[in-house]
Formats: sequence, C-alpha cells, structure tokens
Amino acid sequence: MTQLGTLYVISAPSGAGKTSLVKALLAQDTQVRVSVSHTTRPIRPGETDGKDYNFVTMETFDAEIQKGQFLEYANVFTNKYGTSRIWVEEQLSQGMDVILEIDWQGAQQVRQQMPDCVSLFILPPSITELRKRLTGRGTDSEETINHRMSEALNEIRHYREYQYLLVNDNFDTALQELQSVFTARRLELRRQQQKHAAMLTGLLSE
Amino acid sequence: MTQLGTLYVISAPSGAGKTSLVKALLAQDTQVRVSVSHTTRPIRPGETDGKDYNFVTMETFDAEIQKGQFLEYANVFTNKYGTSRIWVEEQLSQGMDVILEIDWQGAQQVRQQMPDCVSLFILPPSITELRKRLTGRGTDSEETINHRMSEALNEIRHYREYQYLLVNDNFDTALQELQSVFTARRLELRRQQQKHAAMLTGLLSE
Repeated sequence: MTQLGTLYVISAPSGAGKTSLVKALLAQDTQVRVSVSHTTRPIRPGETDGKDYNFVTMETFDAEIQKGQFLEYANVFTNKYGTSRIWVEEQLSQGMDVILEIDWQGAQQVRQQMPDCVSLFILPPSITELRKRLTGRGTDSEETINHRMSEALNEIRHYREYQYLLVNDNFDTALQELQSVFTARRLELRRQQQKHAAMLTGLLSE
Repeated sequence: MTQLGTLYVISAPSGAGKTSLVKALLAQDTQVRVSVSHTTRPIRPGETDGKDYNFVTMETFDAEIQKGQFLEYANVFTNKYGTSRIWVEEQLSQGMDVILEIDWQGAQQVRQQMPDCVSLFILPPSITELRKRLTGRGTDSEETINHRMSEALNEIRHYREYQYLLVNDNFDTALQELQSVFTARRLELRRQQQKHAAMLTGLLSE
C-alpha cells in the first residue's frame, strides 16, 4: 500500500518545550502518533513497557540493528536507544502522521533512510529565557546549569538542517504553528488526491 | 532586497467559495494582501478605481505588456485583464504575502515567471453541491446553468497543476485550512531565519 501519512522528525534543545508541545498536539489531533523508542536500559519504577519505552535486551537490540530494523539508533553510555522501522511504516500506511522526538544525530540518520520525512526544530525565544528554563527551581549548581546550557547550544547549532523552525515564546502560539504544519501538509495535492479519490473521479467524469 | 513574502496563486471554479474564503483570510491575517487586477474595461457604477480594478486605457495596457510588466494577462472578449508585477514585488519585499485570484491559464503564466509561487486550488465538495451552488435562486435557465457547470468543470480539470488542494465543504474548516498553509509557509527555515536573524545570532554566538 502507498504511504499515506507523513513522518515528522522534531528536535530541540532542552528547555525549548518540545515534549509539552508534542503532547498538546497529540491531544488535539487524532491523526498523529508519537513513536515509542526501543531501549536496552532497565525499566524504572513507574514506567510502562510499550508506553514509555519498548524495553528489550541487548541481544534483541543488536539483532534488530543487523536486520536494518532501526530508522535511527544511538549509544548513550552503556545503553542503546533506537526507533523501530516496522511500527512507523505500519502507522504511515494507515494514514497516520508519526512524530519522532530525536536529536540532530538521530535526525540525520532518519533523513538518509526516509528522505521524504519532514523535519522541524523548536527554539527557545532567547538565550536569557533558555538559561532561565534550564535553571529550574534554583537548586542546581552553576556547573550543572552551565553543562545543560552547553548541551542545549550544541543541539541548537544544527537548526539549519531542519525544514521548519518554530520559536516557542508563547506556548499557545507555538502549538497553533505546529498544528499548521501538520494541517498544511495534509492539504498537499498527493495526499488530497488519495483522501478524495472517489469525489475527484466523480467530478472529472462529468 | 531579498524577497521575504510568498506569492500565492489561488484558482477555483465558480461555486467553490474562493472569493469568500480569501476575503475571510484577509480579515484575520494582516500579513496577506490580494492583488488588484488591471483592466481595460470601463468602470461600472459602484466600482472604485484602484480597489475593484486598476482601470487603464488599452494603450497603457499594451505598453505595459511590451515592457514585461505583467505577471499574467488575458483577453476576455474585447478587453484585457492582468496582474502588474511592480505592486506584487513591492509587497513581497516588504514581507507581505500576496494572493492572486486567477484562473488556470493565469496560474500557468505566473508559475513561469515566479517559479517559487505557491499554488492552491479550491474544490466544491461534490458535483451535486456544485450544481446547487451554480443554480442560484432558481431564476436562471437550464441552459445558463449548464454553461456555468461546463465552465466550472473546465477549470476543475486543471486541479493537478496546483501544490495544495482544498475541498470547501464546511466554510470554517476550509478557512482554517487555508490559514494553515499561510502559517506553515512562514515557519520554513529561510523565512524564520530572516525574521529571527538577531535572536539566532545571539544564540549562536554563545
């Protein structure tokens, strides 16, 4: 079956509000799903297998890598994290849009395997606001905060690799903008031709 | 100066609701303007020069054609209608999006001259609904209605030449969809880089 949905890659530094925006989008748009990553790290109290992550053994993970079953994966310390291709392709073929919340390195891997994916980067409105958001409740050391800032800025340096750029100054505005990208993409000729095939045949047979 | 705004070409058969949708979009989106066509036909009672049309003589119109000043133009009976390039380029350079409400023939001319334009076609939801909308108050002859239907269907046959396809079943939904295309296009990397240049420089200089 032809691919109907669109694959979205969304990246952002910590403090940009990516997770909250994606969650709010999912709550209002029933045609979107977010991919649950595979991981080899142990499950933690309060986490649900298949919801927070798909928890698998290192052997399973490595076997899947060999079979080319990951759209992207990464080593984080001694554990592996990745996005399974099967679930994503199944969702797309059912007409669902799929979001991958991954960093710039994962995004580069996905673009190679799925060149039709749509990529979107979310930025905080300013360096001052970013530091404020990463400072949290003021209980962390200056060193910890500087480390977070440095990691955020490393991510930000890759914003030019994305097709869309969102600046999350006001949450409601940013959510509306995010929704616009998803709505507009569904209006592209090819997707509308699939959705309205019967009606178009009717109109053109007159 | 670099072009900042986007040029939109919007076509539709009579009865699709194009004019009402564009009017509603202009009322809610201050970054969009619609182009006023030039015409050689005489001004009619109730019309305002520069608002309904730019009324010009045949000599002026022909001189402008010679100078390549039209993005598109057409002969309709003994009169000429066209879109002036100067006003459009001025608006785009000021960051405004510009809409041209033209037919498929005009759209083809504009695409040749402005390949970056975004084109959008609006359809009625069904052949039955189209006939209903073109029947009007029931005072027209069957022949007149059939002629309108035939013209509408000739326009519809060109929908595949457009990048976006809107189906105007529910007016509010169609308006929201139209707005989404304009909003999403403004989020594209290039335009956001222009809009947020100072902020991006600040973030990346850290």
